[in-house]
Amino acid sequence: MTDTRQPATDLGLAEIAELAAQLRVDSIRSSTSAGSGHPTSSMSAADLLAVLVGRHLRYDWDRPEADSNDHLIFSKGHASPLLYSVYKAVGVVTDHELMTGYRRFGARLQGHPTPILPWVDVATGSLGQGLPDAVGVALAGRYLDQLPYRVWVLCGDSEMAEGSIWEALDKASHYRLGNLVAMVDVNRLGQRGPTEFGWDLDAYARRAEAFGARVISVDGHDLAAIDQALDAAGTGGDQPTVILARTVKGKGFSEIEDHEGWHGKALPAEQAERALEELGGERDLLVRGPLPAFDRAPEPRPGSAATPRPVYPRGEKVATRKAYGEALKWLGGLDPRIVAMDGEVSNSTHTDEFAHAYPERYFEMYIAEQQLIAAAVGLSVRHYVPFASTFAAFFSRAYDFIRMAAISAADIRLVGSHAGVEIGADGPSQMGLEDLAMMRAVQGSTVLYPCDAPSTVALTREMAGRSGVSYLRTTRGGYPTLYAEGEEFPIGGAKVLRSTDDDVVTLIGAGVTLHECLAAADELARENVAARVIDLYSVKPVETETLVAAAGVTGGRIVVAEDHHPEGGLGSAVAEALLASGTTPLRLNHLAVRELPGSGVAHELLDAAGISAAHIAGAARTLLA
Amino acid sequence: MTDTRQPATDLGLAEIAELAAQLRVDSIRSSTSAGSGHPTSSMSAADLLAVLVGRHLRYDWDRPEADSNDHLIFSKGHASPLLYSVYKAVGVVTDHELMTGYRRFGARLQGHPTPILPWVDVATGSLGQGLPDAVGVALAGRYLDQLPYRVWVLCGDSEMAEGSIWEALDKASHYRLGNLVAMVDVNRLGQRGPTEFGWDLDAYARRAEAFGARVISVDGHDLAAIDQALDAAGTGGDQPTVILARTVKGKGFSEIEDHEGWHGKALPAEQAERALEELGGERDLLVRGPLPAFDRAPEPRPGSAATPRPVYPRGEKVATRKAYGEALKWLGGLDPRIVAMDGEVSNSTHTDEFAHAYPERYFEMYIAEQQLIAAAVGLSVRHYVPFASTFAAFFSRAYDFIRMAAISAADIRLVGSHAGVEIGADGPSQMGLEDLAMMRAVQGSTVLYPCDAPSTVALTREMAGRSGVSYLRTTRGGYPTLYAEGEEFPIGGAKVLRSTDDDVVTLIGAGVTLHECLAAADELARENVAARVIDLYSVKPVETETLVAAAGVTGGRIVVAEDHHPEGGLGSAVAEALLASGTTPLRLNHLAVRELPGSGVAHELLDAAGISAAHIAGAARTLLA
Repeated sequence: MTDTRQPATDLGLAEIAELAAQLRVDSIRSSTSAGSGHPTSSMSAADLLAVLVGRHLRYDWDRPEADSNDHLIFSKGHASPLLYSVYKAVGVVTDHELMTGYRRFGARLQGHPTPILPWVDVATGSLGQGLPDAVGVALAGRYLDQLPYRVWVLCGDSEMAEGSIWEALDKASHYRLGNLVAMVDVNRLGQRGPTEFGWDLDAYARRAEAFGARVISVDGHDLAAIDQALDAAGTGGDQPTVILARTVKGKGFSEIEDHEGWHGKALPAEQAERALEELGGERDLLVRGPLPAFDRAPEPRPGSAATPRPVYPRGEKVATRKAYGEALKWLGGLDPRIVAMDGEVSNSTHTDEFAHAYPERYFEMYIAEQQLIAAAVGLSVRHYVPFASTFAAFFSRAYDFIRMAAISAADIRLVGSHAGVEIGADGPSQMGLEDLAMMRAVQGSTVLYPCDAPSTVALTREMAGRSGVSYLRTTRGGYPTLYAEGEEFPIGGAKVLRSTDDDVVTLIGAGVTLHECLAAADELARENVAARVIDLYSVKPVETETLVAAAGVTGGRIVVAEDHHPEGGLGSAVAEALLASGTTPLRLNHLAVRELPGSGVAHELLDAAGISAAHIAGAARTLLA
Repeated sequence: MTDTRQPATDLGLAEIAELAAQLRVDSIRSSTSAGSGHPTSSMSAADLLAVLVGRHLRYDWDRPEADSNDHLIFSKGHASPLLYSVYKAVGVVTDHELMTGYRRFGARLQGHPTPILPWVDVATGSLGQGLPDAVGVALAGRYLDQLPYRVWVLCGDSEMAEGSIWEALDKASHYRLGNLVAMVDVNRLGQRGPTEFGWDLDAYARRAEAFGARVISVDGHDLAAIDQALDAAGTGGDQPTVILARTVKGKGFSEIEDHEGWHGKALPAEQAERALEELGGERDLLVRGPLPAFDRAPEPRPGSAATPRPVYPRGEKVATRKAYGEALKWLGGLDPRIVAMDGEVSNSTHTDEFAHAYPERYFEMYIAEQQLIAAAVGLSVRHYVPFASTFAAFFSRAYDFIRMAAISAADIRLVGSHAGVEIGADGPSQMGLEDLAMMRAVQGSTVLYPCDAPSTVALTREMAGRSGVSYLRTTRGGYPTLYAEGEEFPIGGAKVLRSTDDDVVTLIGAGVTLHECLAAADELARENVAARVIDLYSVKPVETETLVAAAGVTGGRIVVAEDHHPEGGLGSAVAEALLASGTTPLRLNHLAVRELPGSGVAHELLDAAGISAAHIAGAARTLLA
């Protein structure tokens, strides 16, 4: 606790009114001092937050890590002045920090909240994500932690247009998350003008009710009404609660109340002064709301280790997606924190192996990939080890959530099956051909692409202990087991599968193309051309040393083949690593899926895309000519 | 017309029943012949399609390009056997093609429909996209074409879990699209088991009604009831219609009707034989439903050319986002087919310039980025020239739609503002740092990143005439105008801004980093180090010749600086192009945003990320040391 004064507790509504005024004043002061920010979007929700924080949120501000705390998520992350003003009011952020740190370089009170602050669960600011993330936290609370904390979310009215909000409410009611409360700050005005529904609370109410929520509509500036609504909302039950609060943007400063053109604008200093005057000037309240009503950690769950590590005889054809499923089932026995979820394709991704073994730790997300990722993020907030799976292609549906997960410093593991043209007859809509590029570009991410079952098992285990966003790409068809049981596959490593001192060309593949590289090496060997073959199973980070050594031996002649579009995938990883290393000479022949594929069987499509063994051998010959 | 027989027309319900049986039989035959596909998901919707195609869809099958045709979109694209069986029944696909082409390599009857077929508007197969795309077509019909064609969409019940479905219904009712009919095939079973709601049609009805649709619930195997529902639906009005049809998966073959475990499985030959027997065997009906009730093209809209081409004096500081808005307004006057839409940030992207000038050609999509892209795709189906804009970061919300737009061969133009750390105080949630990687990885895409106002204007014009998915990245802050009025910026080009025969290092930037490169070159010049500076405004396709020439002159010493994560962006484009060209030696120093940024002002953040002029000059010195 930064402040040494004794905080006021057991606040009555008169004190709450003072607190709300302080939150408004500090929202204005902090944003004006920063020269940017969203004071008006903070002022509309100040009464909601004052009542919540002063009388309902059960939170020990000195122990943000406590398992018993309620959670508070600002889905409307741009209202950060309000959130940070709350932090000042409860004494964990000083007025000095608020006035000199907000939105400043190197400071933690960023433009939108991130978990660099210990009281923030998830980064927000891309609208429509806080509520889905909160669903993940509430799932943990109800089904895993089995603790009676509540999850309170402040939503904006504009973000109700995001489909992800409805995915979230759908899953919240499906999973009977009575521990989840969404407070919607219906201030009528979006960034560039009125919202779709203005103050038509009934329009929102009909939708939220149809999606299974209990709805309470209130005047968002009537403290007693808010108090009553939060009381009702906080009692749990089997339904999520949506509180629709009719509010006024800029409430408290008559010059700008309900005015268009004031979104995301700090008040000029002189106008801020007039606003403070109208609001009764600066205050320096120090308050605390209720503490958690219990103080216990979740019951530890025993591991079971019922499933042995899967073993595959060399040469046996196994789909890596199948090996992933078996690995996850094995790991799930060892570590009870491992949880899994899937977008209604678990019998294709093989996450169903885990789901059948540990149904209490499996969450079916149906076909809602945004919520699939958000649930993983929310579960990681509660220190579970989530694995989320769907087809590689369909993670593109949730790219914004994956990007934000990295900013949230969430530890989530994503597994995409059915990658590339290898999938065959289903055609291009089902082919993940952008997934490596998309996942590599995520800040701090890990991207893995094993070629056989044992390496898949090893890498799935590595992922379980990996922080940040990690991604495993699996393959639809079965391919021969190449590696021995127990071989290690460190993240950031690579395997040299064929190697002599006389190698004249290097062939690099991963996943299905590794098998094509091996076949190409066989074909070249029959022509007495010695080819080095590298399994680049760790696409990010990539092991530069193995690449540099191979380039050195083989005169810089390198063929990279990937079942992916040419941009941003395996070829980029190799090119970037070798160029950064200063290796010279370099002659890279990069085979990738350059044209739009159609249907067919795997070998036809690999060949048509120019990434089959014959093309790899041909590319090597070109380099040697 | 492939078939020379006279088709049956004016079908009664008895003939419709025969047609439905044929559609089921052919769905089974085609998928069994292919050895894969979704017969059961086709059989559930066969009655819906028989009634629709036989009695309601107004379509001239010999003129799929006719402006007067209704549109038929299979949002549940996996029911392709049903769609292709319809094509056979109306005589535009032969039985031979159906039996030998479905899902085969090189054939057009792919696993999921794509516009390689002239009767298919958009590629589907990623669920929850057909209905949003249809909203775009219906917007064109009501507001631009002003023609009374209808847009009929077949949805699956599983895809109702996708948030994008609700974005679509929200916009359909907001824009009063009475010309849009969604038929939901509620067959109760998803891929791996029951859906969330099974046959609870009321649950869907409540949601669809809350989202503003007129809902009609029917027994999806009662032909008369379907007929009545389609009659009502087709009459227009101001509300979209949702027909909820209770159906049975695998309907017509008692062995598998309503059975789990039959999703996406072709019947084995012997079982298919039994199914055909139960369904009364093969048929060879040739039918045609009604033709369009009118035959006219949309009224041509006059261009206005009211706005002159924007001109910027050299040195004037202008944000490229602002120049984009002014360019779009200019182009909108020249070409009445240009339409624009935005995700509720048009005053930031500056698309509001167009919106104010041509309100009848602007569609506000509010904060629903998936629908934003889908609307553009649907409008491109009707040959409009859509520009869709939001923050660069938020296109990640719709990456699956962008990926699918490429498979749909849609011509859409995307403009993302607020790219990179340059945006400053708002922090990482608002910073597009993956957009170049994401957009480059899209099949056939174009990626542009201008550094000043005139190049932005020129490239916006280039985009208007560009096919496929094109993306323009704009910058938040104002930077000096470098180029003269009228200078050409061909897609696939690059500009050399500093060049002497004595250059010893090449500096490559685009957008904001181009200005940093120029400042770095100035700094190096003061040390008598001559640096070549390249404006790589066309990130994809990239102009290899300029890069190779620069590498040749400067001893392969190249610094690339980009306001983007290191993977898949400008640096990748340069590395891949130079390596593909065989240029040697090469020493690339690649500066990019490698750590998670926070808030700050632009120059602080550019410097902290190591992509400012000082770092670029330093990187050049390192290469020269």
